[in-house]
Amino acid sequence: MIETKLTNKNKSVSIRRDAPTVMIGERINPTGRKEVLAALEAGDFESVRRDALAQVEAGATVLDINAGVPGADETILLEKIIREVMSVTDVPLCIDTANPKALEAALKFYEGKPLVNSVNGEEKSLEAVLPLVKEYGAAVIGLCIDSHGIPASPEERLAVAEKIIGRAAQLGIPIEDIVIDPLAMAMSADHKAGWVTLETIKLIVQEFGVNVTMGASNVSFGLPDRKYVNAAYIAMAIQAGLTCPITNPLVTEISAAVLAADMALGKDEFSMRWIKAYRKRNKGAGEKR
Amino acid sequence: MIETKLTNKNKSVSIRRDAPTVMIGERINPTGRKEVLAALEAGDFESVRRDALAQVEAGATVLDINAGVPGADETILLEKIIREVMSVTDVPLCIDTANPKALEAALKFYEGKPLVNSVNGEEKSLEAVLPLVKEYGAAVIGLCIDSHGIPASPEERLAVAEKIIGRAAQLGIPIEDIVIDPLAMAMSADHKAGWVTLETIKLIVQEFGVNVTMGASNVSFGLPDRKYVNAAYIAMAIQAGLTCPITNPLVTEISAAVLAADMALGKDEFSMRWIKAYRKRNKGAGEKR
Repeated sequence: MIETKLTNKNKSVSIRRDAPTVMIGERINPTGRKEVLAALEAGDFESVRRDALAQVEAGATVLDINAGVPGADETILLEKIIREVMSVTDVPLCIDTANPKALEAALKFYEGKPLVNSVNGEEKSLEAVLPLVKEYGAAVIGLCIDSHGIPASPEERLAVAEKIIGRAAQLGIPIEDIVIDPLAMAMSADHKAGWVTLETIKLIVQEFGVNVTMGASNVSFGLPDRKYVNAAYIAMAIQAGLTCPITNPLVTEISAAVLAADMALGKDEFSMRWIKAYRKRNKGAGEKR
Repeated sequence: MIETKLTNKNKSVSIRRDAPTVMIGERINPTGRKEVLAALEAGDFESVRRDALAQVEAGATVLDINAGVPGADETILLEKIIREVMSVTDVPLCIDTANPKALEAALKFYEGKPLVNSVNGEEKSLEAVLPLVKEYGAAVIGLCIDSHGIPASPEERLAVAEKIIGRAAQLGIPIEDIVIDPLAMAMSADHKAGWVTLETIKLIVQEFGVNVTMGASNVSFGLPDRKYVNAAYIAMAIQAGLTCPITNPLVTEISAAVLAADMALGKDEFSMRWIKAYRKRNKGAGEKR
């Protein structure tokens, strides 16, 4: 059973298909979040600390950190946000940047084994990111996209995953340190989009058995009542083989669907995790929006 | 592609795995519903008519009819309820009784092809129910249980399904008129229960390709926040091959999960069904409890 181990100074998280699903909190990301963007531009990191604590309280055991503020020096801002988050929680982090300089700076001071978000099938990306992943002993998310764009079929996406895993192996990066993202696209734009992603997950599990992540909420983009779509879809994706979704644990429907899916797959003995989360929700935690 | 056709005087419903999921409304059943029981005992059928209309409004295209009132003459009560339901809606019905006399009486006057709920793997049941199904040209639900009780493993449940399908074939009942129920049990009592049912569904689809039903809400028995468990589980079961759950369409989380699962499997072009249901909900329909 493939196991991806992520660590921070004091905490370690193990991602494996025979264990409960690992929720990677998506909220520390200014993209499309005006108030967070404004706060960061103003040098106010209170919302970042709040988002970090709230997501961990709601069940996230890894936090994605994205510092994409237009015009800002990403290297400086990413390090600052990571330090702020580590000042309030010690869960392992997912360093989310397309900027190799910012990535390397973060990898330099991060104490432990983070998840790098992300590398893709393009030469430029493979050459810039994989050596850093190897040098700093990190794990990395491999996106099923290359210079030709996002492949339409599950088989073509699998081929991109294979390319990334193969190139990583050449550098001595073990397969358990590659987490594949099959890419979830909007079903409102293409009614086959959800299905293609589920099939891609099944193929990846069959072929490589690696851990699988995705921005699970993308499928509902453009639809009303997104929380219901996201909840059903994330449960189906977990059944297909998704092990560490990047999602918003503060949406009760979503975190409940993740716990229910684990329970349905026999991973919650005596329903202990379900009942514990229910009690937490009804103390108010997890109900925040 | 196997197709189970159910009809009533004016309406026909087709159940097939490549079409949207068919919701069979479960609410016309006095079992565990005190107010309905009391009304029926008092000869008041208003709640039956209300339940029929509300379920159809919320997306049920077949209605399960159960007349299990202790002490009442089931033959008379079942016919009465069916006539009341047919006075307000013309969707095909699922005749839910363990009493062969009551079943035959209902089959006699029902105008069309109903679904009989149910036969199981016991000789007594096979001999009492299958000849009636054949004589009246109905379809029938086959429960994966026999004289030894509910089998623990997916393979043993499959064997019961095989026995029922085989015996039906001997009487000339075509396989498309057998809908298998793998049996959903409480996960709070056995943490593997949800998984066993999902695996049974996959085996049944692989082996026979027949339509699959179940009382999907049983899995959450004894747990808090059942609606979230039921929503996630029904989506996963649809992904496994469930085609016509017996459920409560008035619970928004459940009917939304069914529509979302269909969308995720590529069965909702332009998200038309999702958006239509959303608009209905927000006119008030489907929000009733």
